[in-house]
Amino acid sequence: MTHDVIIIGGGPAGLAAAIYAGRAKLDGFVLEKMSPGGQVLITDRVENYPGFPEGLTGFELVEKFSAHAQKFGMKIENGEVASIEPVGDLLNISLTDQRTITTRSIIVATGATHRKLGVKGEDEFIGRGVSYCATCDGPFFRDQVVAVVGGGDSAVQEAIFLTRFAKKVYLIHRRDELRAIKVLADRAKENDKIEFVWDSVVEEIEGDDQVRSLKILNRKTGETSTLKVDGVFIFIGIVPVTDFVKGLVETDEMGFIKTDQWMRTSVKGVYAAGDCRQKPLLQIVTAVAEGATAAYAVEHDLA
Amino acid sequence: MTHDVIIIGGGPAGLAAAIYAGRAKLDGFVLEKMSPGGQVLITDRVENYPGFPEGLTGFELVEKFSAHAQKFGMKIENGEVASIEPVGDLLNISLTDQRTITTRSIIVATGATHRKLGVKGEDEFIGRGVSYCATCDGPFFRDQVVAVVGGGDSAVQEAIFLTRFAKKVYLIHRRDELRAIKVLADRAKENDKIEFVWDSVVEEIEGDDQVRSLKILNRKTGETSTLKVDGVFIFIGIVPVTDFVKGLVETDEMGFIKTDQWMRTSVKGVYAAGDCRQKPLLQIVTAVAEGATAAYAVEHDLA
Repeated sequence: MTHDVIIIGGGPAGLAAAIYAGRAKLDGFVLEKMSPGGQVLITDRVENYPGFPEGLTGFELVEKFSAHAQKFGMKIENGEVASIEPVGDLLNISLTDQRTITTRSIIVATGATHRKLGVKGEDEFIGRGVSYCATCDGPFFRDQVVAVVGGGDSAVQEAIFLTRFAKKVYLIHRRDELRAIKVLADRAKENDKIEFVWDSVVEEIEGDDQVRSLKILNRKTGETSTLKVDGVFIFIGIVPVTDFVKGLVETDEMGFIKTDQWMRTSVKGVYAAGDCRQKPLLQIVTAVAEGATAAYAVEHDLA
Repeated sequence: MTHDVIIIGGGPAGLAAAIYAGRAKLDGFVLEKMSPGGQVLITDRVENYPGFPEGLTGFELVEKFSAHAQKFGMKIENGEVASIEPVGDLLNISLTDQRTITTRSIIVATGATHRKLGVKGEDEFIGRGVSYCATCDGPFFRDQVVAVVGGGDSAVQEAIFLTRFAKKVYLIHRRDELRAIKVLADRAKENDKIEFVWDSVVEEIEGDDQVRSLKILNRKTGETSTLKVDGVFIFIGIVPVTDFVKGLVETDEMGFIKTDQWMRTSVKGVYAAGDCRQKPLLQIVTAVAEGATAAYAVEHDLA
């Protein structure tokens, strides 16, 4: 059986694509390797997706997107893509469980994952003090001391969130001012529990059975110091989940997929939407709009 | 007093820009010449804005967007813009009521309005049988016969809507197949009250104190005929509301404003978002994403 479209990834971009594809009565489904939601699930509170003035949790918003897609008949199936191969006018998707799916079009909406610091101790202490998700792991650090690494929106938002649990939150940033939007930066600066460690980078994560301290380099003075912490949360950016299309579609040097404004990639029949795509603003609402646009383009291109 | 940003237009794009600008603590407000909502208000039911699986009316969605913007401190003020003049690094906005507003940036989100047929009788019978809004005027045609002109999503959706009231709906389209998405086209074809008039254009709207008939030209056969109707609804596309920036920012030949992917126009400090902008897909969700992106760009460019 040949499908009209397979949507890879069940985050906001993929689910929005499913809403539009389902409403357009295209045949296909969403492939998700875990459970629907993507990065949004690790967001404590979404307060800027237009239409929800009171805000809602990432989980609640994903539930709404999923229900919306299913309302229009789009199913969400479990499976992880190993590779994609164009065969004539069709595309074969190979899954890691050996299944093969044949389809006329594919929307890649696999999103992105956290970037690692790449320092000694990071991999070793994952789950024992090193975390990339404040919502997931914050509650484990009640009345303890944690550090957040980064200076963008995510880092600052999560640092604020962590003050609900931790007694102290160090915010370690390589520059001497935050990159985060003003409302977040202001909130962080007004928060007594947050102490800024400017111009600094983490050189090593140290501990025994769990994280105990960070070796910090001040980039301005060249001085090294040790910061005692019970945990460290790393929010220094994202990397796209696009390994499985490397060499197939055109990407930038970071691996983000290049598209035109209809979300078409360099390969006929393959589209990309959301955080895995090269684009200026990574927000839920832009991912959703791109998913919708990609599905519209699929419908248009198939007709 | 000099503001950070003035958002012109209170439809989905403008209100989303307000949500983002307000949350970023930018100083400014939304200028709307009528009441917030724009074209969405004349949409009977919005079923594809992701996050609302059950659908909602255009009015309800706009209420949510407005509340969301106001939650972040953005006010919606009444006023119609006559012109914009750059003065050094600032922009002066002149209103039709003679007020002047000085601001560092402007987001143009004035949307679009219906395109006219440009035939004899059209202007004469507006409000007496000629309409551009099925939601507004449909109920006046209970058990009567109406025609819809157009073949895109709007035309077909409104034709279906009108069957709730009218006893018969002619769908007059210049081609022999619909441009609308399949789900809508299928619904229209399955509807017994809808009769298609293919390959045809309206040459004249005729009547006395109100519309009585349409003069129709079949473009394939060259034959002219008369179609008795009590009303005619025209949905043949849109024109951007951009007269007040003509000669200031770069537009295409239709008047749609050109921007980069950050929604920046050719004039420093002036941004555009939504249906007034040159872009591929005119949907609520894309307008909203563009409004958010424009506000983000404003914040970034001011910093």
